[in-house]
Amino acid sequence: MNTKHVLLIQCEDAKGLIFNISKIIYDNQLNIVRNGEYVDRENEQFFFRSELEGELDKAQVLKELRFVLPDGAKVELRAKRKKRIVVLATKEHHCLGDLLLRHHYGTMNASIQAVISNHDVLEELVTKYQIPFYKVGTKGLTREEHEEAVLKKMQIFDFDYVVLAKYMRILTPNFVAQYPSKIINIHHSFLPAFIGANPYRQAYNRGVKIIGATAHFVTDNLDEGPIIYQDVIRVDHTYNTKSMALAGRDVERTVFSKALELVFREKVMINGNKTIIF
Amino acid sequence: MNTKHVLLIQCEDAKGLIFNISKIIYDNQLNIVRNGEYVDRENEQFFFRSELEGELDKAQVLKELRFVLPDGAKVELRAKRKKRIVVLATKEHHCLGDLLLRHHYGTMNASIQAVISNHDVLEELVTKYQIPFYKVGTKGLTREEHEEAVLKKMQIFDFDYVVLAKYMRILTPNFVAQYPSKIINIHHSFLPAFIGANPYRQAYNRGVKIIGATAHFVTDNLDEGPIIYQDVIRVDHTYNTKSMALAGRDVERTVFSKALELVFREKVMINGNKTIIF
Amino acid sequence: MNTKHVLLIQCEDAKGLIFNISKIIYDNQLNIVRNGEYVDRENEQFFFRSELEGELDKAQVLKELRFVLPDGAKVELRAKRKKRIVVLATKEHHCLGDLLLRHHYGTMNASIQAVISNHDVLEELVTKYQIPFYKVGTKGLTREEHEEAVLKKMQIFDFDYVVLAKYMRILTPNFVAQYPSKIINIHHSFLPAFIGANPYRQAYNRGVKIIGATAHFVTDNLDEGPIIYQDVIRVDHTYNTKSMALAGRDVERTVFSKALELVFREKVMINGNKTIIF
Amino acid sequence: MNTKHVLLIQCEDAKGLIFNISKIIYDNQLNIVRNGEYVDRENEQFFFRSELEGELDKAQVLKELRFVLPDGAKVELRAKRKKRIVVLATKEHHCLGDLLLRHHYGTMNASIQAVISNHDVLEELVTKYQIPFYKVGTKGLTREEHEEAVLKKMQIFDFDYVVLAKYMRILTPNFVAQYPSKIINIHHSFLPAFIGANPYRQAYNRGVKIIGATAHFVTDNLDEGPIIYQDVIRVDHTYNTKSMALAGRDVERTVFSKALELVFREKVMINGNKTIIF
Repeated sequence: MNTKHVLLIQCEDAKGLIFNISKIIYDNQLNIVRNGEYVDRENEQFFFRSELEGELDKAQVLKELRFVLPDGAKVELRAKRKKRIVVLATKEHHCLGDLLLRHHYGTMNASIQAVISNHDVLEELVTKYQIPFYKVGTKGLTREEHEEAVLKKMQIFDFDYVVLAKYMRILTPNFVAQYPSKIINIHHSFLPAFIGANPYRQAYNRGVKIIGATAHFVTDNLDEGPIIYQDVIRVDHTYNTKSMALAGRDVERTVFSKALELVFREKVMINGNKTIIF
Repeated sequence: MNTKHVLLIQCEDAKGLIFNISKIIYDNQLNIVRNGEYVDRENEQFFFRSELEGELDKAQVLKELRFVLPDGAKVELRAKRKKRIVVLATKEHHCLGDLLLRHHYGTMNASIQAVISNHDVLEELVTKYQIPFYKVGTKGLTREEHEEAVLKKMQIFDFDYVVLAKYMRILTPNFVAQYPSKIINIHHSFLPAFIGANPYRQAYNRGVKIIGATAHFVTDNLDEGPIIYQDVIRVDHTYNTKSMALAGRDVERTVFSKALELVFREKVMINGNKTIIF
Repeated sequence: MNTKHVLLIQCEDAKGLIFNISKIIYDNQLNIVRNGEYVDRENEQFFFRSELEGELDKAQVLKELRFVLPDGAKVELRAKRKKRIVVLATKEHHCLGDLLLRHHYGTMNASIQAVISNHDVLEELVTKYQIPFYKVGTKGLTREEHEEAVLKKMQIFDFDYVVLAKYMRILTPNFVAQYPSKIINIHHSFLPAFIGANPYRQAYNRGVKIIGATAHFVTDNLDEGPIIYQDVIRVDHTYNTKSMALAGRDVERTVFSKALELVFREKVMINGNKTIIF
Repeated sequence: MNTKHVLLIQCEDAKGLIFNISKIIYDNQLNIVRNGEYVDRENEQFFFRSELEGELDKAQVLKELRFVLPDGAKVELRAKRKKRIVVLATKEHHCLGDLLLRHHYGTMNASIQAVISNHDVLEELVTKYQIPFYKVGTKGLTREEHEEAVLKKMQIFDFDYVVLAKYMRILTPNFVAQYPSKIINIHHSFLPAFIGANPYRQAYNRGVKIIGATAHFVTDNLDEGPIIYQDVIRVDHTYNTKSMALAGRDVERTVFSKALELVFREKVMINGNKTIIF
């Protein structure tokens, strides 16, 4: 029986919240492995995350918590477990290859259920790792029809997150709306610099001395979703668009896997268009 | 009246600590601005830091806390205030100059009471900022006699911390013993690489591609005290000892002022030869 | 007599350029301390920088070089010397304070001729270092009139570069046109992210995990001039606009002084809206 | 026919070297794609690297160069081509997995001829990529006998470099002597910090705030060979030895592949116990 849980709370800030929450944890004889809290003073919102150990009656604990928390509080008590993910990709292998290795060796807290791509070039790599691969081509399909086909494939599987490992198509609001806060993308620039297409070309044209990558949740606004993690590397005048893209691959995959691990370990809470990382 | 306090607790780990502590905070009608906690599982030690707002009876709160905490718990409840520091320096101006500017503009949470040096070259800089400067020369004095003279000057002032801004003399155990966890040094290497004299020469000889700086508490063991903050910069084969030292200055002063600010804001707890940064 | 020079060449790329240039250097019995070259293949432009030692007849060397270089080549042979700068500032002290210290201790390759500000708050700091300070207030003046007054003050001095140490006014094209490639600014963001006013507020609103600073030459297009140097620091959800600005100060001044040193040591060549750093 | 070459020269410094070298390049109608040079003033050594394009008579060019260079000059003129490597590994997959992906997609300038390990756990991964895998167990063998067996397997293949992808055995001087400047290792610390066994444990015990990885050539002195590339990541008090090791993996593989690429593209010259990176 799983005796490890993560408790996540978001509510209006109020006096005594920590006392009230920790009293319930204590009364239920649960051990706190790690606590995190944050108050967004601008919006008077309280965020709380606790890793708990011990046998618990989930319904009872949630009931007790709701009783002491302000109206409108969001409370979740999740059993700790490996997440299930579906990966969307296009042609680039570097982020996907990294995920496959981590999946294969169990070094990320998620297992890949399937990889879906609008091309077939990655099939050979994916099948090396005995993971289902589906090509859903775009030929002759409208954007909506193509997404429908992708969704249909996805829905074969039970999954917690949709992971865009360099999926080079823009998702429609309809698609995004079906998985709120569940789609994670890696963008190949240091957002909000170089929003949109071909960020390395933009970076080259602007003559920047640093390039980067950004992992973020996907929302309706392209490249505007809550940022989870970012990192950068130095470039200089000897780089062109191509060598920037090549150098950027390493930071893309590292940012992506680091951000995913934060999400898979329930360390990320969403606060409007921002994230809180515990 | 000061109604802002920082509560710092270190004790053996036990069940219910957070509940018990937060109950006392709540019962005393104090508001938690920010909480931090950490359990060192190797040594079963619990560390807790809380920023509190509200009027309090310090003796009463401490009594209540000691009642619920395990025997041997260290508890401190400090009114939030600007710290007072004495600075020891030798000849280099870059860390001291930065501290003087921050003092002058109130951008660090401490005020410099005096600067003491074994040379007089920095006097002109220090007096620009209307801060007392004392030269305590070493001529004709044993190490112990010189330290006695320095201590005598220091003791004119009321201070919380002794800050070694590139003080190039090794302190004796006797000196260190008088200010446990109160002396902070900046070392011009990425410790534990290049312990001892002339770390930039050592770095040059070894051909490293990265150099750094380390701010740490001073203990009896030279360069072995708890590390507070570190940072690095890239170098390449075109650097010699001198240009490394020049480039290193910027990272030294930034590491130093960042570490000092953490200490001055009571965000650092000491755990054996390590620090916990809240 | 100064026997150290920097040779800077920009011209169309062609075969034999290095041979022809190094032949002239050799024939004039000059010693090469350090050579740098770069070919921009997109625009077929050749860039060359050489540090030379030895007595030379400048007119003769330039004549010989022009003879072998393609038409339209830009050739400069500058005696190595400390630069002279005029600093424009507003109210913030951190970049200016750093420059004053470096000036005072001779640790930058430039000396400050004067500081001009649209406010008087920095006068007290500047005069500590015996440097002329002028307030040119904006009251009752149009933008053009104010700039005229600033230019008039500047023109009292002989200077190589105009350094904007957090000068919070936008320069007109007229002003910029008078000092092409001679005005250097520090922008408090990782350009091109957060162009324009209050970048830390923008960064806070966007929820970025990294902030930065950018030193660049000033051109007519605000925040669009050739970038010289950039650096970044990590922030997290606990930062607000104010604490971002505070943390950003350290990276601003370090980026600024590093970029200035590159310029003052003639290591920067301009290639359209980009820089080449040798 | 391959018309791209890299010219590498090391010799005593002397006047006119660049002129003499570039004259030969010019006379042979070769195009310079990229030049690099460096003078080690402490040892009066001149280093030169040039990427050349054009048809050439290798013997003739070398003869002409030797004629103008000082006695004892080392001159190499290598046709640009993909390198061949043999990889030694033990049990860890993260560096090897990265190399396999880069090999598979042709994104490094080398192809893996074989992987040899003292264990068999990596066989399954290696064979996914159709690369020969050999286990050379240590059971019942002395260190020397085991190395003999490894060498015998290696010598089946034609290779340029031996790449130690977390090979956890110390090579004997005999082994190292057979491949001078041809063996590249990734060490899981920021050398020279934490030389020897279990650097993450050492880092944890010391309480450092930054950990790193170092790629270097292997010499007789363990962890003392010329450093090619290093990088670091931040850690804090919440990390234990295990989580440091996990976090360190990403920086290990990135440092390793970056260093290897520098070597494979002939951008690294060795200067005593240091490297020069062009």
